[in-house]
Amino acid sequence: MVVLGIDIGGTSIKGGLVDNNGQVKDIFNLPIDKSLNQEQQINALINKIKDTYNNDEFEGIGLGIPGVINSTTGIVEFSNNLEWKDLEIVRMFNEKFFGKRIAINNDANVAALGEAKFGSAKNEKNVVMITLGTGVGSGFIIDGKLYEGEDCRGAEFGHSLLVMDGLQCNCGRKGCYEMYASATALIRQAKEAIEKHPESKLAQRASNGEKVDGKLIFETAKEGCKTSLDVVDTYVRYLCEGLLNICNVFRPSTILLSGGIANQGDFLVNKVRNYLDDHNYGFPPKKVVNIKCASLGYNSGIIGAASLLLG
Amino acid sequence: MVVLGIDIGGTSIKGGLVDNNGQVKDIFNLPIDKSLNQEQQINALINKIKDTYNNDEFEGIGLGIPGVINSTTGIVEFSNNLEWKDLEIVRMFNEKFFGKRIAINNDANVAALGEAKFGSAKNEKNVVMITLGTGVGSGFIIDGKLYEGEDCRGAEFGHSLLVMDGLQCNCGRKGCYEMYASATALIRQAKEAIEKHPESKLAQRASNGEKVDGKLIFETAKEGCKTSLDVVDTYVRYLCEGLLNICNVFRPSTILLSGGIANQGDFLVNKVRNYLDDHNYGFPPKKVVNIKCASLGYNSGIIGAASLLLG
Repeated sequence: MVVLGIDIGGTSIKGGLVDNNGQVKDIFNLPIDKSLNQEQQINALINKIKDTYNNDEFEGIGLGIPGVINSTTGIVEFSNNLEWKDLEIVRMFNEKFFGKRIAINNDANVAALGEAKFGSAKNEKNVVMITLGTGVGSGFIIDGKLYEGEDCRGAEFGHSLLVMDGLQCNCGRKGCYEMYASATALIRQAKEAIEKHPESKLAQRASNGEKVDGKLIFETAKEGCKTSLDVVDTYVRYLCEGLLNICNVFRPSTILLSGGIANQGDFLVNKVRNYLDDHNYGFPPKKVVNIKCASLGYNSGIIGAASLLLG
Repeated sequence: MVVLGIDIGGTSIKGGLVDNNGQVKDIFNLPIDKSLNQEQQINALINKIKDTYNNDEFEGIGLGIPGVINSTTGIVEFSNNLEWKDLEIVRMFNEKFFGKRIAINNDANVAALGEAKFGSAKNEKNVVMITLGTGVGSGFIIDGKLYEGEDCRGAEFGHSLLVMDGLQCNCGRKGCYEMYASATALIRQAKEAIEKHPESKLAQRASNGEKVDGKLIFETAKEGCKTSLDVVDTYVRYLCEGLLNICNVFRPSTILLSGGIANQGDFLVNKVRNYLDDHNYGFPPKKVVNIKCASLGYNSGIIGAASLLLG
């Protein structure tokens, strides 16, 4: 079977044909024209698909979309980045692709599903994927299926509370996990450390005009900058206390890390593994959980979206 | 179908015959003789069952047991209260009840399953039950089935962290939910308030020799004691921030409260509902979740254990 996977991002849309082995071909890229209204944006996408593929090249279309996506009703209830609201995207696709299966889901959810079907957690039944980016996205695979909760409103681990009365989150709560474990949080923590330690290599490189981002923080940490190492270790502690919550409540076989920070690979993963092993409280000494990085890379959104209809 | 449900507590074992409608009859009660070793305790239970029922009165036996229970291997890996360790309870039952199905699970899990099959959350597919007692127990029903996680080590929401670097928990972590939302925590919070407000009605009744427990705290709160009301409101805030985590991650249709504190009924449930409605951050104004009290009462452990094999 071949399915068209569509990965809708904040500024552009990628799509491609995905087969039963998770192989992608014939990728297209369509910038989102924000001067159009939401329905016009969808029509532009539909036209792009019709221009790019023959109707008999794919059996269905899966779409991964950021925001509150109701996979049951087929409606994008709210997408902050895209400024979409109550958008009946599945109905619009059904009208133009008669007889084909159309499925939608949240982008973090489909990314997790793709990894559980074709990536780092292939064939595993209970998997949680955490995406460390501007916020913290999460996808939960339970018993081999995406878990979305009532009205598709669950699986928002980034908005579970880690620090009671902590930092104000955009969602309205105080102390959400994503305020401490996102890439944004790491950068904030590093900037605070730079203020305190202007003598550090991290601070000096920042004052030379280098951008304070995950890359600089991890690079200087690997080079032995104590300030950067402290920043990373504090960040890892926040990250891992949340992962321990996932272990104690979901106890998946594998937790996958993705997003820019996860590109740090073994340096990060080893620190995470060590912390979890050292703090695997209340359980006999056996492996807590597998920690791996997501492996599908640049096309993960396309493969994940297609996974809604594959395998 | 009729199944024998066995509810193993810290000091005694209850059992009864449960039918497909969740009705219980012929209840027995067996004190646990702690002078016996664990295998002898199980043999005493088996003998009690053989003495109480004819072999053709039931088709299988379900057992709910406190501790780390591996429902797949049939082994009680560890039970702190019972001082059982690596106890092959299913094998022992199989040898004495040849041809009958034997199932075991954690007591909080079976209690949740019973409520989802026969109690307050009958026929609901996604249900979380929180038991507010000495600690905080939890059971998760996902897609109509008990969710246990890998090696049956999940569903321990009481040991997810609510307060980073908070109070030391028995499990080894600091700041676990049960350190703030258990009945034990409520009483600790009340005792702290009594120290600060010796003039309060709560403090006065305590100094008159009344036991500081949930009953006294809620009774004085209902009578308008400001100190007690503050204690209850602070407790509700901790309780509900954890419940909001459950909403954002699991988004069940219903959260059930059980345990002694849940006997406070509407007074507590209304406060919880109001808090959740007021703090339903990041989601459009629709009902967050149903909040109900568990309804199976005294026999809930028996019914829950039997539910492992019923319905």
